[in-house]
Amino acid sequence: MSAALRSYVTGAWHTPTDEGRPLHDATTGEEIAHISSAGIDFAAMLDYGRRVGGPALRALTFHQRAALLKQLAGYLKERRGELYAVSAHTGATENDSRFDVDGGIGVLYAYASLGRRELPNDTVYVEGPVVPAGRGGTFVAQHVATPLRGVAVQVNAFNFPVWGPLEKFAPAFLAGMPSVVKPASPTAYLTAKLTELIVESGILPEGAWQFVAGSLGDAFDHLTGQDLVAFTGSAATAATLRAHPVIVRNAVRFSAEADSLNFSALGPDAGPGTPEFDLYVGQLVTEMTVKAGQKCTAIRRAFVPEQWVDAVVEAAAAKLAETPIGALASLEQREEVRRSIKALAAAGRIAYEGTAPDGPGAYQAPVLLVGDPERAEPHEVEAFGPVSTVLPYTATEQLIDYAARGRGSLAGSVVTGDRAFAREVVLGVAPYHGRVLVLTQADAQESTGHGAPLPQLVHGGPGRAGGGEELGGLRGVLHHMQRTAVQADPDTLTAITGRWVPGSARTVTDVHPFRKDLSELKIGDTIVAGPRVVTQEDVEHFAEFTGDTFYAHMDAEAAAKNPLFGERVAHGYLVVSLAAGLFVDPDPGPVLANFGVDDLRFLSPVKFGDALTVTLTCKQITPRDTADYGEVRWDADVTRQDGTSVARYDVLTLVAKKKGAQQ
Amino acid sequence: MSAALRSYVTGAWHTPTDEGRPLHDATTGEEIAHISSAGIDFAAMLDYGRRVGGPALRALTFHQRAALLKQLAGYLKERRGELYAVSAHTGATENDSRFDVDGGIGVLYAYASLGRRELPNDTVYVEGPVVPAGRGGTFVAQHVATPLRGVAVQVNAFNFPVWGPLEKFAPAFLAGMPSVVKPASPTAYLTAKLTELIVESGILPEGAWQFVAGSLGDAFDHLTGQDLVAFTGSAATAATLRAHPVIVRNAVRFSAEADSLNFSALGPDAGPGTPEFDLYVGQLVTEMTVKAGQKCTAIRRAFVPEQWVDAVVEAAAAKLAETPIGALASLEQREEVRRSIKALAAAGRIAYEGTAPDGPGAYQAPVLLVGDPERAEPHEVEAFGPVSTVLPYTATEQLIDYAARGRGSLAGSVVTGDRAFAREVVLGVAPYHGRVLVLTQADAQESTGHGAPLPQLVHGGPGRAGGGEELGGLRGVLHHMQRTAVQADPDTLTAITGRWVPGSARTVTDVHPFRKDLSELKIGDTIVAGPRVVTQEDVEHFAEFTGDTFYAHMDAEAAAKNPLFGERVAHGYLVVSLAAGLFVDPDPGPVLANFGVDDLRFLSPVKFGDALTVTLTCKQITPRDTADYGEVRWDADVTRQDGTSVARYDVLTLVAKKKGAQQ
Repeated sequence: MSAALRSYVTGAWHTPTDEGRPLHDATTGEEIAHISSAGIDFAAMLDYGRRVGGPALRALTFHQRAALLKQLAGYLKERRGELYAVSAHTGATENDSRFDVDGGIGVLYAYASLGRRELPNDTVYVEGPVVPAGRGGTFVAQHVATPLRGVAVQVNAFNFPVWGPLEKFAPAFLAGMPSVVKPASPTAYLTAKLTELIVESGILPEGAWQFVAGSLGDAFDHLTGQDLVAFTGSAATAATLRAHPVIVRNAVRFSAEADSLNFSALGPDAGPGTPEFDLYVGQLVTEMTVKAGQKCTAIRRAFVPEQWVDAVVEAAAAKLAETPIGALASLEQREEVRRSIKALAAAGRIAYEGTAPDGPGAYQAPVLLVGDPERAEPHEVEAFGPVSTVLPYTATEQLIDYAARGRGSLAGSVVTGDRAFAREVVLGVAPYHGRVLVLTQADAQESTGHGAPLPQLVHGGPGRAGGGEELGGLRGVLHHMQRTAVQADPDTLTAITGRWVPGSARTVTDVHPFRKDLSELKIGDTIVAGPRVVTQEDVEHFAEFTGDTFYAHMDAEAAAKNPLFGERVAHGYLVVSLAAGLFVDPDPGPVLANFGVDDLRFLSPVKFGDALTVTLTCKQITPRDTADYGEVRWDADVTRQDGTSVARYDVLTLVAKKKGAQQ
Repeated sequence: MSAALRSYVTGAWHTPTDEGRPLHDATTGEEIAHISSAGIDFAAMLDYGRRVGGPALRALTFHQRAALLKQLAGYLKERRGELYAVSAHTGATENDSRFDVDGGIGVLYAYASLGRRELPNDTVYVEGPVVPAGRGGTFVAQHVATPLRGVAVQVNAFNFPVWGPLEKFAPAFLAGMPSVVKPASPTAYLTAKLTELIVESGILPEGAWQFVAGSLGDAFDHLTGQDLVAFTGSAATAATLRAHPVIVRNAVRFSAEADSLNFSALGPDAGPGTPEFDLYVGQLVTEMTVKAGQKCTAIRRAFVPEQWVDAVVEAAAAKLAETPIGALASLEQREEVRRSIKALAAAGRIAYEGTAPDGPGAYQAPVLLVGDPERAEPHEVEAFGPVSTVLPYTATEQLIDYAARGRGSLAGSVVTGDRAFAREVVLGVAPYHGRVLVLTQADAQESTGHGAPLPQLVHGGPGRAGGGEELGGLRGVLHHMQRTAVQADPDTLTAITGRWVPGSARTVTDVHPFRKDLSELKIGDTIVAGPRVVTQEDVEHFAEFTGDTFYAHMDAEAAAKNPLFGERVAHGYLVVSLAAGLFVDPDPGPVLANFGVDDLRFLSPVKFGDALTVTLTCKQITPRDTADYGEVRWDADVTRQDGTSVARYDVLTLVAKKKGAQQ
């Protein structure tokens, strides 16, 4: 008998206590492993994630978690040959494996990068601006996001045994939430191999990645409102799990990526002989053949202007005939695909059918149908293999209506050189789609294609597609966290968020804050500098020097007619330049550079004779784990003699961790 | 027999076709109306919303919808006396009615303001930055949000018959999605009155507000993936609706605000005699008595340091004895509250019980219990009336653990003067709460209090509280829209979003774009100006003039040691000042002012002798419906002689709609 796949739960490898079910090589039909989760204590597994994995993750900052993701990506990249070798058993070609294995590793890199760029080197994420909640400024609010205290239970589909689990794991990990990774059985041996590599690497904190080969048993009965479930698979299973009494009762966050009748439309401008026509056919064939069409995002409905249906079929058939294609994941899967083809053929006709290799493997020849778009089947029956249906349309509005009949899809695409058509279709189908690609001559070379979700973008779709939009960039991370509105006085809010909140105390010390290195600098450290009077001569001089002789600065009569000024005023750029002159500390020190300015608003005009004072306060400190310096964000408030703010902005600087490091 | 409440569906008032159930005045017990939705064709109602309301709303821009919300708020404000009069029948005191009626009108104002400030004067919302998806810059992506094409079905609770419906309606309307408003029966006559005013105002497009008095019949059977349900009420009903087969099958967006055992904690620093102690007791009594405690956010669990339990009870009892309190909404509700009090008393003791007026009204005396926090009841039994339980704690960690035993709540509060304690508690309980308030001496005067959700902040909570976070600010609007990732080449993306995307075509015309008014200006209009060489003299002159003599500009030896520069460089503020001098058009014209700069980044140092060119491109045009001008956002790209960008930012200007308007 073949070996049993082991699970990795509660910090140890678990060998099933029963024989389980056999798994087969998709290309040879040979039995290669047994699968069962018998003997796992699922309540203990969840508890372990909550008790061991969660605290370990929450002890790390976002940047530290990002660094581990990057390290793990590098580790797996070096060993991807091992994953490719196992991947071949799933029916994947070398190219298919690249999608799955390299794609998955790419997701780890993407979230690692996102963590360093968009998240603080801290354990709490502060979202959005401070919301004033009273005129006096003593009561303010801001949102913080903290990791859920439960476990992310991730149920994956069979088609992407590496990329699927990693796509779900990466945002959970970055958020600070431990994962339970459950692959679909037919290809679980590849996810088991991935788990072996991850465990052997020792990179992740214990409890962050648990792995179940086989069913999740009674795990769902033990879920709480702090856990979440991320599901990829059939709409039927999604519906069953979504209605699980414990999920319903505890309002467990449940997201699903399910069936999807993705469309691709050829524009009316893009007839045979145009480059767009070739792009359309090429993409259609790619989507039918990569992963043998076993992609949730593959094109199932190919909308084509009525007059070019035959041309598309002919061109696609020629290309399909010479495109290599792997096996489906299992014989059961092939049966399912063949049933679907039959249902589709009943509402149309098979226009092309390729040939598949003989033998015991789960090979399926590609099938291109031509269907009647007024029938329900083409919009409802998902043949999860190398199968697509060409559907004629005659008008843009009709095309949009047809696309919507998919009742919610993951991805759509439009191939056209006509931007007005592209706009109409994209905005028309957008409410029904998570992602829409416009393929043009301009982007064809760099396009990642109809079928490829990107970690920065929404992956999911409404309705039939499951309603998920939890994946994609920062949203994917925040999905694993609770967003909480915190209301307090400014000083207390500063203490809670670790960011200086306007209205809270400023600390003016003897030492200029630009003389403090990152270890010395404190939130609230402030310098008040000025006043400097802005004279007519200053303004005229600045105008002449820079060339900015805008009438509002130079021409009293014209300025008087300006509805906002009423008289000559100083340049905004002069105001911020003078402010920098006031707050700067000229000698070499820990402040290395001013690398930017955010949210600059000129709040009130500066008139001749106004005296400017600037108050600069340390607002946020972000040390970089990978550099000798960090970023410091300063609140700059430029006021005139009566105390009115004339300009307000954030000054961004790089500050050395240790004095002298830069000298 | 009393009159039957009418529904307002499919553009007409509907009188029920059967007798229905009687409703009673909460203060007198008199029958005041009958309620039934018999005879309504619910499928037709939903269809009407989709067919009539949706298109009418989507034809308006966000700003136009915001203007209608503001107009409606003004209309209702003038007539709030009529709402107060009806509100009195629900048991509400004058103060209670203020919460409900004025609170609801306030929500309309808040979303009107949000729409003008945070949303474009357009029908599509573009979210987040352009995501580069290829090195060559020919393939980019961005997210757009478009309104769902269905109906927002809003099921409201009995306790806020005005505020509740308006809180749900406002974000749906602003998003462009029509509402079906269903109030809870006991107080539905007040929502019926609100509907009368709204219909009579004629302000909203037909189909935007439908109203059902009585049950929703088979409406849920007709929901699609483009509809959504927003529910406020009991956790049991929420669970039933959430598991409705149509909701599950179609992945209908379902959000719930349900039971919530909100806590308020007194800090260990805040013993009797401190101002915080008085604040704590005052807030507890307010939360018990406003709306007779019938608030989802009211304090049910009052955590108090062990040694001050008696002192809190005594002070609260004294205050309760003199605080006026209205009736509960119905006798049935009072029965329910009394059952809950019994369950709570079984796990503790009644420490104070007030007196309620005699008579047929649904009056309930306030009850303060002291409970055992190790028992389950205080954390699980929600007595939805003037009832709270004081629970002793001894350590901060224990307090956090107790708070979490509510298994997810809408609101928590901490009353303390100790910021470290506040931070520990807030971050400790955050994963279990949608909102946490810190009440201090500093914010007490302006604080809106423990129980008041704000339209800008999350309202909802995880787990038992229903898992909702769909309300609050922009998120509340986006909840009613589909987020779609659009991938295209830059020019096509510009055409789709109506915003200039970096990499897309720039139009350099004979006329300086600053000479074009809003009607003439086009996305992509560009001026390229320069070069201007930056000399050592310029830098030294600027340093002397502004006072910014930072060593990196002035001291060759020190600058050489700076790890980022290596030699003397020009001031960033000099670079942007010179850029303005290059692109500005000095004569009076449509451009009225530069009111700000966003996202300024200094990308590469400018060295002596570098020649700067600036390319300024019209990126986004936002006309103001209420002013003679609009906002124009420009992409500014300052490059040096080799084409490298040295600074990149957005310039924000106000531009007149018509030339001459400003002169």
